[in-house]
Amino acid sequence: MAFSFQVQATSGRARACLIETPHGPVETPIFMPVGTAGAVKGLTPRDLGEVGARIVLANTYHLMLRPGDRLLAELGGLHGFTGWSGPFLTDSGGYQVFSLSSLRRITEEGAFFRSHLDGTAHTLSPERSIEIQTNLGADMVMAMDECPPFPAPHAAVDAATARTTRWARRSQAAHRRRDQALFGIVQGGVFLDLRERSARELLALDFPGYAVGGLSVGEPKQDMHRVLEHLDPILPQDRPRYLMGVGTPEDLLEGVARGIDMFDCVLPTRNARNGQLFTSRGKLSIRNARYKADSRPPDPDCPCYTCRTVSRAYLRHLHQAGEITAASLMTLHNLAFYLDTLRRVRQSILLGQFEEFRKEMLRALAVSAAEGL
Amino acid sequence: MAFSFQVQATSGRARACLIETPHGPVETPIFMPVGTAGAVKGLTPRDLGEVGARIVLANTYHLMLRPGDRLLAELGGLHGFTGWSGPFLTDSGGYQVFSLSSLRRITEEGAFFRSHLDGTAHTLSPERSIEIQTNLGADMVMAMDECPPFPAPHAAVDAATARTTRWARRSQAAHRRRDQALFGIVQGGVFLDLRERSARELLALDFPGYAVGGLSVGEPKQDMHRVLEHLDPILPQDRPRYLMGVGTPEDLLEGVARGIDMFDCVLPTRNARNGQLFTSRGKLSIRNARYKADSRPPDPDCPCYTCRTVSRAYLRHLHQAGEITAASLMTLHNLAFYLDTLRRVRQSILLGQFEEFRKEMLRALAVSAAEGL
Repeated sequence: MAFSFQVQATSGRARACLIETPHGPVETPIFMPVGTAGAVKGLTPRDLGEVGARIVLANTYHLMLRPGDRLLAELGGLHGFTGWSGPFLTDSGGYQVFSLSSLRRITEEGAFFRSHLDGTAHTLSPERSIEIQTNLGADMVMAMDECPPFPAPHAAVDAATARTTRWARRSQAAHRRRDQALFGIVQGGVFLDLRERSARELLALDFPGYAVGGLSVGEPKQDMHRVLEHLDPILPQDRPRYLMGVGTPEDLLEGVARGIDMFDCVLPTRNARNGQLFTSRGKLSIRNARYKADSRPPDPDCPCYTCRTVSRAYLRHLHQAGEITAASLMTLHNLAFYLDTLRRVRQSILLGQFEEFRKEMLRALAVSAAEGL
Repeated sequence: MAFSFQVQATSGRARACLIETPHGPVETPIFMPVGTAGAVKGLTPRDLGEVGARIVLANTYHLMLRPGDRLLAELGGLHGFTGWSGPFLTDSGGYQVFSLSSLRRITEEGAFFRSHLDGTAHTLSPERSIEIQTNLGADMVMAMDECPPFPAPHAAVDAATARTTRWARRSQAAHRRRDQALFGIVQGGVFLDLRERSARELLALDFPGYAVGGLSVGEPKQDMHRVLEHLDPILPQDRPRYLMGVGTPEDLLEGVARGIDMFDCVLPTRNARNGQLFTSRGKLSIRNARYKADSRPPDPDCPCYTCRTVSRAYLRHLHQAGEITAASLMTLHNLAFYLDTLRRVRQSILLGQFEEFRKEMLRALAVSAAEGL
């Protein structure tokens, strides 16, 4: 089965779509749990299925360094290696080179860096990124981009955006696998003129999907919303749109409201390990002493395994005791909450009632754990 | 449902029994996973059910210190707190006081110690241990014993054994809950005369079950076997026998061969977290470079989730990357292997073929991972 994409319903600018991939369908809007090194931290592939995950993101940078993309290819790629039989998406690796590695030098050719694991020297170019992603075998892969820091002056963002287009062209030229959909990544920071130029240049290359990169990097929320609103009429209706590295439950609602179909973020998984739960009534920090004898489930409105089985008091105890089961149980809940929220978003779009849903949910999320839970 | 015990079949000295508890039946021989702080490290209650666990051990010492037994009682005891709805067994806490706490003083009254967590002062006496275990609410509870170190001279073991009987009497006098079965613990080190005296003194107190403590503490295997062989005709046939803190798969087979029904040990769970897998052909250390590209399951003969889903290469990668999913997956396998082994042991007893099973399995286990896997 090749890649295909279909808009099934809209409600305002929000879209409910169906993506077909070689490893099964994905209904959008969708959140993709992050499985950095080939596993979502604390979960088994079966757990992922049970929280409702449909597609998992894996990080090219981490996997190229360990266990290495050639070994991964020998072992059947991500699907053969990890036990997750649904679709995968891989990023280009560029963002992690910029944020995690040391001694990096970026030229037109690509990025030269030292591994954060052992200091060995590596190169990541658009061609090498595609080679790695070909070896990993994800269903959706990303063209390598240059993501400028925030804040950066217009001229610097302009240069990075222009390079992103050149790298997108090289990525496309290097990409051979017909069973993978290669996405172009729109850059341009918070500058609408650069965002528009970036999108139009990538559209000319006719990618099967478009990602929006370089947001949620420190800019005010209004800037993110402005950029997405500006891009919505420019990006083609008949291609999936993926907002990279975003975000909070509120960000997801605001992204969907501006035409976004796909999201990924480490927030629900990382925060779970730090004891922060996302619930239908706001955030809950399990370390708070007020939960010491609280026999209620983390989120009384949540049907997930964790909420059906254990109390806040138990999770707090396990977290304080440093038990890794705490990380598993809280990760299960946070992902179930994210995925369930987007399923309900989708339902509201199919019913043409997304705007009502969004407003109501934002109101509920604004209730602090202190008052509402 | 009150506690009951029934021998269903024997094969040599090996026994297949049925224990009824207020939280369901337990078929023996059985291995009890250790859930020290109220969770088996890296697993959810559901995982425990899926690996075939029937009864879980929790540690009185850890739970009295955190979250505290009174709080646990408020929250419904271990069953209400942890989400594990099957039977629990708790130890007396004495062994951990001796091995984990600091500044301890042991008198006839009990043990005075400082918490390994925060240095606070605590007392554990036979009466306090029963009070805690009453609050925790396990189905099977233990009388507090004094476990002398190994090696220790006859006179020292004699004194500890005599005290163990006095403490057993006090434990019994303090114990009120009719829905809990209180076990006496046979001590006596490697001295058969003391073991025999300990057993006979406890038998006079008529406990519904008997544990054998103070083994697997450094003595030669032959000593453990000798003690068990000596106790087998002394311990009553119509009561369960629990060999505490034991052991390797080989130890389980040798224990069953000498009339033992119940086992617990941190070995399968702790070793899983350290990358050591128990398999039908011996031990496998996943850190070994030879598994780097090994696409075979950890144990080709094992039907557990981990062996059905992932390869040695994947587990090695996750372990090397410090991913907690590695601990979960390997704990799942090790416990499934232990529990499945004892299910097969039970089947062989029911068929009157335990001795053949034992010999064959010991032969298979002796095959090193290097040669056989």
